[in-house]
This record gives sequence, structure tokens and C-alpha cells, in this order.
Amino acid sequence: MSRLEVTEKIITAKVMRGLKWADVAARVGLSKEWVTAACLGQMSVTAAQAGVIAEFFDLSETDQRWLMAVPYKGALPTVVPTDPLIYRFHELISVYGTTFKELIHEEFGDGIMSAIDFKMDLKREPDAAGDRVNIQMSGKFLPYKTF
Amino acid sequence: MSRLEVTEKIITAKVMRGLKWADVAARVGLSKEWVTAACLGQMSVTAAQAGVIAEFFDLSETDQRWLMAVPYKGALPTVVPTDPLIYRFHELISVYGTTFKELIHEEFGDGIMSAIDFKMDLKREPDAAGDRVNIQMSGKFLPYKTF
Amino acid sequence: MSRLEVTEKIITAKVMRGLKWADVAARVGLSKEWVTAACLGQMSVTAAQAGVIAEFFDLSETDQRWLMAVPYKGALPTVVPTDPLIYRFHELISVYGTTFKELIHEEFGDGIMSAIDFKMDLKREPDAAGDRVNIQMSGKFLPYKTF
Amino acid sequence: MSRLEVTEKIITAKVMRGLKWADVAARVGLSKEWVTAACLGQMSVTAAQAGVIAEFFDLSETDQRWLMAVPYKGALPTVVPTDPLIYRFHELISVYGTTFKELIHEEFGDGIMSAIDFKMDLKREPDAAGDRVNIQMSGKFLPYKTF
Amino acid sequence: MSRLEVTEKIITAKVMRGLKWADVAARVGLSKEWVTAACLGQMSVTAAQAGVIAEFFDLSETDQRWLMAVPYKGALPTVVPTDPLIYRFHELISVYGTTFKELIHEEFGDGIMSAIDFKMDLKREPDAAGDRVNIQMSGKFLPYKTF
Amino acid sequence: MSRLEVTEKIITAKVMRGLKWADVAARVGLSKEWVTAACLGQMSVTAAQAGVIAEFFDLSETDQRWLMAVPYKGALPTVVPTDPLIYRFHELISVYGTTFKELIHEEFGDGIMSAIDFKMDLKREPDAAGDRVNIQMSGKFLPYKTF
Amino acid sequence: MSRLEVTEKIITAKVMRGLKWADVAARVGLSKEWVTAACLGQMSVTAAQAGVIAEFFDLSETDQRWLMAVPYKGALPTVVPTDPLIYRFHELISVYGTTFKELIHEEFGDGIMSAIDFKMDLKREPDAAGDRVNIQMSGKFLPYKTF
Amino acid sequence: MSRLEVTEKIITAKVMRGLKWADVAARVGLSKEWVTAACLGQMSVTAAQAGVIAEFFDLSETDQRWLMAVPYKGALPTVVPTDPLIYRFHELISVYGTTFKELIHEEFGDGIMSAIDFKMDLKREPDAAGDRVNIQMSGKFLPYKTF
Amino acid sequence: MSRLEVTEKIITAKVMRGLKWADVAARVGLSKEWVTAACLGQMSVTAAQAGVIAEFFDLSETDQRWLMAVPYKGALPTVVPTDPLIYRFHELISVYGTTFKELIHEEFGDGIMSAIDFKMDLKREPDAAGDRVNIQMSGKFLPYKTF
Amino acid sequence: MSRLEVTEKIITAKVMRGLKWADVAARVGLSKEWVTAACLGQMSVTAAQAGVIAEFFDLSETDQRWLMAVPYKGALPTVVPTDPLIYRFHELISVYGTTFKELIHEEFGDGIMSAIDFKMDLKREPDAAGDRVNIQMSGKFLPYKTF
Repeated sequence: MSRLEVTEKIITAKVMRGLKWADVAARVGLSKEWVTAACLGQMSVTAAQAGVIAEFFDLSETDQRWLMAVPYKGALPTVVPTDPLIYRFHELISVYGTTFKELIHEEFGDGIMSAIDFKMDLKREPDAAGDRVNIQMSGKFLPYKTF
Repeated sequence: MSRLEVTEKIITAKVMRGLKWADVAARVGLSKEWVTAACLGQMSVTAAQAGVIAEFFDLSETDQRWLMAVPYKGALPTVVPTDPLIYRFHELISVYGTTFKELIHEEFGDGIMSAIDFKMDLKREPDAAGDRVNIQMSGKFLPYKTF
Repeated sequence: MSRLEVTEKIITAKVMRGLKWADVAARVGLSKEWVTAACLGQMSVTAAQAGVIAEFFDLSETDQRWLMAVPYKGALPTVVPTDPLIYRFHELISVYGTTFKELIHEEFGDGIMSAIDFKMDLKREPDAAGDRVNIQMSGKFLPYKTF
Repeated sequence: MSRLEVTEKIITAKVMRGLKWADVAARVGLSKEWVTAACLGQMSVTAAQAGVIAEFFDLSETDQRWLMAVPYKGALPTVVPTDPLIYRFHELISVYGTTFKELIHEEFGDGIMSAIDFKMDLKREPDAAGDRVNIQMSGKFLPYKTF
Repeated sequence: MSRLEVTEKIITAKVMRGLKWADVAARVGLSKEWVTAACLGQMSVTAAQAGVIAEFFDLSETDQRWLMAVPYKGALPTVVPTDPLIYRFHELISVYGTTFKELIHEEFGDGIMSAIDFKMDLKREPDAAGDRVNIQMSGKFLPYKTF
Repeated sequence: MSRLEVTEKIITAKVMRGLKWADVAARVGLSKEWVTAACLGQMSVTAAQAGVIAEFFDLSETDQRWLMAVPYKGALPTVVPTDPLIYRFHELISVYGTTFKELIHEEFGDGIMSAIDFKMDLKREPDAAGDRVNIQMSGKFLPYKTF
Repeated sequence: MSRLEVTEKIITAKVMRGLKWADVAARVGLSKEWVTAACLGQMSVTAAQAGVIAEFFDLSETDQRWLMAVPYKGALPTVVPTDPLIYRFHELISVYGTTFKELIHEEFGDGIMSAIDFKMDLKREPDAAGDRVNIQMSGKFLPYKTF
Repeated sequence: MSRLEVTEKIITAKVMRGLKWADVAARVGLSKEWVTAACLGQMSVTAAQAGVIAEFFDLSETDQRWLMAVPYKGALPTVVPTDPLIYRFHELISVYGTTFKELIHEEFGDGIMSAIDFKMDLKREPDAAGDRVNIQMSGKFLPYKTF
Repeated sequence: MSRLEVTEKIITAKVMRGLKWADVAARVGLSKEWVTAACLGQMSVTAAQAGVIAEFFDLSETDQRWLMAVPYKGALPTVVPTDPLIYRFHELISVYGTTFKELIHEEFGDGIMSAIDFKMDLKREPDAAGDRVNIQMSGKFLPYKTF
Repeated sequence: MSRLEVTEKIITAKVMRGLKWADVAARVGLSKEWVTAACLGQMSVTAAQAGVIAEFFDLSETDQRWLMAVPYKGALPTVVPTDPLIYRFHELISVYGTTFKELIHEEFGDGIMSAIDFKMDLKREPDAAGDRVNIQMSGKFLPYKTF
């Protein structure tokens, strides 16, 4: 699984040299959310983007080719994530999943929120009682149609 | 599982009489996101709130007591949801879960985004290329501490 | 699970009275593929369509309301289907799934074939060596975009 | 698992040298669907076909022998696929699987659509609202018989 | 699940009245293997056959209609069977499955033994050291073809 | 897992040199069914048999020792086999498992068919409509006894 | 699942009237181990035995017929038992399973200990440091044979 | 997993040099049951015992340290064991587990049989109809207490 | 499952009449931890205790008998709990399980902390930064012994 | 997975050189519970702490960087732990999980005990009838709030 090895190289470089996702994203000229997902093996990049990422993390030409290939997506080793941070998102779906469903159908009718035509923005929300994580998601609504 | 039966009564009333989550939320005086989750058996409500919900959906006094009890939470029948709308959220975690983890740690250090001290807002985002579902989430950051 | 009961009523009526999916589809004025999926609890219908379906299968007014509500989708009792006919489709994905992925990416780049903006047509293909099942699927390609 | 290593060699060669499945299929003289499945370790090929594939991807003689052996089939690492493109096909079976079953039985009686005596054709379907993926499947109907 | 209820009625009648599968098969005029599978909800029967079965087990006209419908097949409650008799067959596949695969491919090339165009015969094989169960299976070989 | 490596050596030798299971069985002087199972790591062999197998597949003395040790049995990587040929046997148990159970109990009473005191014979059955795979199984019936 | 209902009737009678397994076993004239297993739906009994059991637990004639039918065996609701007493046996296999395997093969060669031609005896073993549970198992060794 | 490697070294030495568990147990001066479990990575041993085992199987000093560390216990690769010998024990719990529970509670009240303060003895039981495997287990009864 | 019904009766009575676990525990004269577990179907009680509990929750004489029977233990509907409160305990084991293991072995050697000879105490721990849940567990250490 | 390798280096050093968790904790100046969890790959440490740990276990500079990175948490190889010591904690949740839930809600209302703002203390509790393991847990209560 060569793409996996590129992902591990990137993470190792980041840990060893103390790099930041925000910095590589700034150089690529796209959001930190998208660039991080791409570096973690979930998106494919253009040749130009691969060049920037390779320079930042000191990757080989071979590694760049893998970054440009469409990866087999899915980043988690287990169906129910064991990592406490990622589990909290899993719990949100377990607790609020039917709420998402009801409210989107109430507003839009039958269909889904696209996970492909999708973007998001994650930032710090200062708060006197302790700062908060703020995530804004935006996905195109796709209606079911009759045929 | 009596709470489950109350949830089913609420859904049946909603389907049969064409009620809206937004309307019951307005009467309760809280967000449609929280009130829907409560009606779907994921939150416990106060006696006053139970009264409003019971009137809206035509529930018995017994049903109101169940609404006030803390439920066993978790609304989905399978680990990987089969419903296409809810699955898209599962997919977002599968594809972006490690991205959430990396970016939150980069900004805040080791810890999690609380799924308890949490709120969200779901709305329509008009867009010429097709309207979008916009979800804003806000959860308190809880740091791991040494002991 | 009231919608499930409506599905069972429809199937019972079909078995007992020897009805045909093609006939109910003709009355609804849509494809047999979509109407069957709707009758089996996977799609929501308009009031007018519910009226036609209810008349055909002799359903109550309450049943019609359930047909108009958006269902919790997913029709199979196990992850790997035990029914031989449905399993063959599961096997096609197991054997050809990576082929679908490679060829769609080769033609379109990174993205998916929508399962929402999707239609299909299933028909008999006469063949001297034994007739064949012919299924034509058409789903909109949705590209991943950078953000 | 030597066959797996041949598959990985083929994928690596394809990514590194920017090869196309359509081109290797043209040289083999068969459909891109079948040849891609064979290269991905799901079909066995003749000595002549193995020669063409080996030349195209620069494989060793040992690799050719593996291409000619019948592989242990099944290409996906998890029962429910995590990759969004492949998952959409899984979802189609979850949502439409009982529809396939009902309509095939209505047309043909008890039996299955063969996944062995099967062929398919995948192509781009131009559409003003965004091009579509068009997949045509044809499988022999096999009736259950009494004995 | 009405078909399930017919199966339970048949089993109850058999237990209560001490009936034999061999006898109902003789009246239907087909093998005991096929008729038992049909009575247990795995095959669909003709109107005439349904009549014979209904008379034998004292079933209603409604029950007969269910016997004629194509059932959702798969008779076991768990993936790995807990019943010792049925588990032994599961073990045979676990231990000899790759042997079946190798020997069939050695004799026939790439393809499968059909589980649809299939028949079997189960009988007692007298043996001084203790009688044996003898099962003869015959399934059409279906070759994979190129396309 | 050294026994696994011996199995892989045997398979590689077979693929590379085009050997046949029937031939190694003939030299061992036992059925092709049993010898193939032994070579695939499911049975233990005598020193003499190990010698014949080692010569045939060009194995080391160390490999012979592993062939003589009782292996940890079970040859399939997943509970539900993904390989289409082996899956068909799994399907036979899913569809006919309760039929096996009923008919064996009708003939023999409570007990099982042994998967240990067991033998089988797999051969080609010529048929004008396409040749068939014929498998004959014979297992000792073991009755449950009271104590 | 009528047999299940008979099992529940027996357990209810036992709890309500404070009956003992040892007493019903004494009346049947067999070991308490076998009779308890039979009462719990894991063995089939003769007409005479059914009569004794029915009188003891006050069962109907219909219930007696179910006791005489061969049940679908397997008494636990989950693969890994949640009940602490039963789990300890599961743990013994997890920890000592490979030890059983090695020692039985060392003594007997390749084969198994039968779980069918099997009996056991469970008794109290007085001990100053606290009494012990003593279980003696005896199962026929069944060798694998070549064929 | 260094302890695992020591286990594999021991098994390899045993297979290659034809050693016996009974012999190493005799040298250690404890039962063959306990010593085999220890060699298979389920128990920790003293320095003196490690020395005897190391000499017997020709292990390094490093290996001895691992034998003295408390291992992560659990020796089987799957929850339901695929090996026929070990599966029979799993089946005994599936069939007799509730019987164990009922009889132990009848004799001792609420509590468990310890799997820690536990010993066992496995021996050959000569029998004219074929020798039997005899296993005697003895575990301390631990009562639940109120608090 | 009659014991389950008694548990549901108790919970319903508690919710409907606003009863407290602390109060029933006080009347029984034991800790609130043990009495709650007993009421929730995890412990068996004496006749006297059953009488107190029955009076408190207004249960029938039949219900009391069930409270006195040893239950099939295990209170959660899924292996990984969906309820956020209970999941946090599951997470503690996932994150700290190997820490528990290492520290207990460092202090006591090889063995376990008993979950049977076990008691606990749960109380509120006032804290200026927000009150805390304080749980004290005490379980007897049980050493593995050689035999 | 480089962090995993650091964990294995630490465990190997501990086993080979007979080190103690209590000693490394004393040098770090924090509790043995937290430091052990950190060494086992569940917590991230500061540069100064990494230096102390590296010196104690003789780790490289690269290893120190990994200790400072936030790990993917979750230390157990299976959902239900096979190790008897760790399983006992799993059993406590299975048996007492709903008791924890009821008593925490009775005392605090709807919410959870934090597994992040959490600390614990594990010690030996001398007892004439055999020493006990004593574990004190303290986690902040986090209430659900309306929004």
C-alpha cells in the first residue's frame, strides 16, 4: 500500500520537524481542512500541489506521483473509533443523526447533504468559560427525484 | 422500552398531522436542533417543557414522565447507518476524522471537543448552483491534564 | 415501526391478490424501478401518488401518510445479504468494485457516481443461450473540489 | 500472497508511468472492464494475454505465471466499503436490492442473475446538467429447478 | 413476515402430528431434499404443489399463496451456525473450501459450481462400523468468460 | 507461522511449474481430495508422505517437519468467503442447512454427520447441457446419547 | 419458536415453585447434567422422558411433543457470553484452548475430542480454603483418517 | 510482540526436534497442563522455571526474560475458533453453558467458578469402543456478596 | 424473559412515581450501588430483600420470585455502549486498560482483580471548578498459581 | 506506526532491565497512573518529560519526538479484551454500567463523567482475607445543557 507509506512519511516529517498543517496549507493556497485531508491520504492533488507538498515535507518524486493518484479513502482503523477525539464525532452521529435527518428533510424534502460537494472550516471560538472548537460545514443538498 | 414508545407516538403524530419540528421548538422556546433531539429520545426535558411537548403532540401524562427521565441514548439501529442521509455524516468522519484530530490538536493541544457541552445550528444556505445544507457546531475544548 | 407495517401490507396484498409492480407503476405514471422501491419503503411519494398506490393495494388513509413521509432507508436484514439473488449484486461489488473505481476515475477524475441523482432500467434481454437480465444504471458524476 | 504483489506492481507502474486501463485493454483486445478486473487480481488470463499485460506493465515471467493462476477473488478490505465511490454501489444494493429481487422475479420467476455469465460496459453519458456515469450490466438469468 | 409464519405452522404440524418429510415429498412427487427446502421457506412452489402441501400440513388458502411467492432466502439465524449438525457443514467449508476451489479449477478452469442449477441426494450408507450419512451434490459448472 | 509459509511455497511451486494436485496425490497413493487438503495446511502427514510431497514440490527437510505437525486448521481469511466458488458452498448451507438437519434427523434421530470420520470424492459429471461438478460426501453418523 | 416457549415455561415453573434440577433428573433416571441440558432446549427426549418432565413442571401435551423434537441447538444470546459464570468457561478456552489442542495431539495424534459422544459430571469439591466446582468431562477421541 | 516470537521459537523447536510437552513439564516439575500453557504464552514463570524451559528449547537469555513477564493473554486468532478440536470446546459452552450455570447456582448459589484459582488434568481414558479424552477441571467457587 | 419484565416494571415505577435508588437502598439496608444493580437485574436477592423491594416498587409475589432467582447477567444492548455516560467507562478501559494491567502486575504479580469479590462506592466530590464524580472500587486480588 | 514502535521499545526495556513504572513516574514527578498511560502510548508529554522518559528507558531523540506527539489512542487489540485482568473491567461495565448511569443521573441529573478531565489512583488495600486492589476514579461531571 504505497500511498499509506507516503502518509506515514508526511506524519513522521511533521512530528520530527515540528511542522504545521496551517503552513503547508498556506503554501498550497487552499484551506487547512482540505490540505490536511489530502496529506492524510483522502484527496488527490494536482502536479503543482504535489510539488509544493513534496518540498514542504521533503518527499521524493515517486511520493508525488502517489499524491496525484486517487486514493482508496477511509482513514480509520476500526468502525467505532477508539480515539477519544474522533469518537466524540461518532457519538454526535449516534445521538444527533436522526435529528440531522429530520431537520434536513423538514427544510429540503427527501434527499441528502452531499459529502462530496462539501467544504468545512474549523476554528477556535474564544469563550470565557473555556475556548470552544467551532466547525462550520456546508454541503450541497441533493434531492431524490422520481424516474 | 417505554421511552421508545413515546418517541414512536411523537413521530406518528408528526406524520399523521403534518406537524413541524420548528413549530414545537418555537413553543418550547429553544433551538429546533435541541428540541428535535429531545423528542427523538436523546435528551431529558423539564416538567414545563414536557408539558409543552405533550400538548403539541397530544401525549398522556405518563408519556410526559418518560420525557423527563434521562434516556438510554443512541438513536441508530446499526453501527454503520444504512440510511443514505445519515451515512453521509458517517462518511465524513471516515474521510475527515483524522483531519479533525490533527487540526484540533494543532490549535489546542491534546484533548477533545466536548459532545456534551455542545450546540449546533442547521440552516439552508442559498446558492445559485443549488442550495446547501449549512451546519455550525460548537463544542467546548477539554484538555487532557497530567495528574 | 409503522412504515414497515405499510410495506408488509403492500407485499401481502401483492401476494394474496397476484398484483404486479409493473401495473402499479403504470398507474402512478413512473418507472417500475422507482415505484417498486417506493412501495418497499425506500422512497417518499407525493399525496397524489400515495392515493394511487393506496387504491391499488387497498390501503388506509393512515397508510398513505406513511408513504408520504421520508423513510429510514436500507432494506436488507443483514450486511452480507443471504438471499442468493441479492447476494450476486454484493458479489459484483466485491469482485468488480475496484474496477468501477479505477475506470470511473480514469474517465472523470476524483469523485463519485451519485446514488441519489440516479436512475435505472431493468429489462429482459432475449438470448438464444438463455435470456439475460439487463440493467442500465445512470448516476450523475460528482467531482471532489478543493476548498 | 504473491498474486497480491503482482497487483501492487501493476498499480504502482500505472501510477508512476501514468498508464491507462483503456490502453492495456486495447492491446489485449478485450473490454476495459474485464481487463481491469483481471489486472486487479479478480480474473485469470491466458498465456498470450499475460504476455501482453506483462509487456505493458513491465512485469517478470514469474508475475505472468501468477496472472494465469485462478486468484482468490474479492478485492475489498472491509465488508462495508469505506471508499465513497465504492460505497455508493453498496448503498444502491441496500436501497434497491429488494427492488432488483422483486422485478427480476416478476419478469423471470424464481432464480438469479448470474454474476459469472456476466458482462458490463461503463461509459460517460454527456448531460447538460453535468455528465453522468452510465453502467450497463447483462447477466444470464438462471432459474431454480425442482428435482 | 408472513412466510416465516407459514414455515412455523408447517414445523408445528410436523412435530405435533409426527409427520415425515419423505411422505410429503412422495405426495408432491419430487425429491425429499427439494420439498423439505421448499417447506422450510427456501423455494417457491406451483399452485398444484402448494395444494398438496397445504392438504398434508392442514394449511389455509392464504398460506398456499405464500408458498407460491418467491421467498427471501437464507434459513440460519447466525453467520456461524450454533447448531452442531449444521456447524459441521460450515467446518467442512472452513477446512476443505480451498481444496474444493483448487480441484474444481484443476478440472474445469476458472468458474464456479452453480448453487442454482443444483440438485442433491441424501441417504443412509450402511456400514459395519456405524452407518454413514451420504450426500451427493451435483451442480452445473459455470465458466467465467472474457468480454 | 511457519506452516503457512510451507503452504505458500507449495502453491508457488505449483503455479510456477504448472504442477497438478492429481499427480502429487497419485504419488502419495491417496485421494486427490485428502492430499490437496494436506498440502493446503489442513491435515498432518506421515514421514513417508512428507517425503513424497517434499520431493514433488522441492521442499526442504524443515518444511517436511511442518507437514508432519498437526496444523491449526481453518483455511479461509473471512467468515463469509468472498471468493465466488467457495461462497456458493456457503450459500448451500444458508439455503439448505435446515434441510440437511431435518432429513438427517428424520433418518437417524438426534446427532450429527461427522466432519472428522469423513471422506469425499469430487469429479466431472458429463452433461449435454454443460458438464457438472459432482461431489459425494460420506460422514459417519454420531448419535447423541443420554448419560 | 415454540420450543423456546417450552424452555421458558420450564424455567418459570422452576423459579415460581422452587423446583430443583437434581429432582427432575432423579425422576427421569438420568444424570442431572443431561436432563438439565434437555430441559433447557439442547437435547431431545423420548416419549416416556417427556411424560416425566411434563408432570414435574406441569406442562401440556403439546409441550411434550416439542420436548421430543430435535431442537436447533445453541443456548447463548451472544458469541462472547456476558454472564460472568458462563464467560469464565469462554475464558478457559481463550487461555487454555491451544493447550488442550497440543496435549490431545501429543497423546492421540491428529483428531478431536467428540462433543457428541460426550458426558460430564459436575460436583462440589470440599476444600478448607473454600469449596471448589469440580467438572469431569469425557469425550471419545475421533482420529482424522486418510482417504 | 516479542513474547509471541518466543512462543513461535518454542513451537518451532518442538516441531523440528520432536520434543514433548510432557518432558518439559517433568523437568520443570509441574503439570503438563500448566507448563504447556506457560510455553504457549499464557502464564508467567519464575527465573528458575525459565532457565529449565530455555535449556529444553534452546532459548536465549532475552527469551527467558520474556517468559518471566506477565503476558497479554488470549491465544486464539478468532472469537469463534476455526480449528475443529478447539471448536468442540466452544460448542460445549454453546450447548451446555446454561446447564453449567443452572447446576452451579443450584449447588452453590449466586457466584462463579474461578478461572484463576483453577487447575485441570487431561488424560487418556481407555475404552473398548475407542479411547476417550478425559478432562478434570477444578475451580474455586467465588460467591457474590452484598455490600 | 420474565426477569427483564420485572426490571422494566421497576424502572417504570421509578420514573412514574419519582422514586430514588438511595431510598430503596436505605430500606434494604445495603449500599445504593449493590441495590441498584440488583434492581436492574444483575444480582439475586434474599426473600427478605425481595419483600422490601417489592413493597417499595409495588411488585407482585411472582415478581419477588424472579428477584430471588440468579439472573443471566449483562445489562447492555450493544458491545460498545451507545449511551454517552456508559461509553466514557468503555473509553477508560480502551485508554487505561493496559495501564491497569501493568500497575496491578507491578504491585501484585500475575493474577486479576476480582469482579465478584468486589464492591464500590460512588459519590459527589465537591470542586470549585465544577463538582466531580468520585468512584472507589475495591476488588480482591486473585493470583494465578502453578499446578 | 512509529509511536507503536516506541511503546514496544519501552516495554522491551522494562522487561529486559526489570524497570518499574513507579520509578519512572517518580522521576517524571507525576502519578504512576498517568505516566504509565503515557509510556503505553495513550498520552502526549512535554519535551522535559520526554527527556526524563527517554533517559530512563534509553530512547533515541527520534523516539522523544514521538512521545511528544498526540497519539491515536486506544490500547486494546480487540473490542472485548481477551486478557483476563482487563476483561474483568469490561465485565464491571457490562454488569454495573446501567448502575453507574442511574446513580450518576440521580445525583447530578443528565450528563456524563468526563473521561478527559479525569484522574485515578490505584493502590494495594491490605486485607486479612487477601489483599485487595483499590482504584479511586475522579472525573468532572459535565451536564447536558439546552440550547
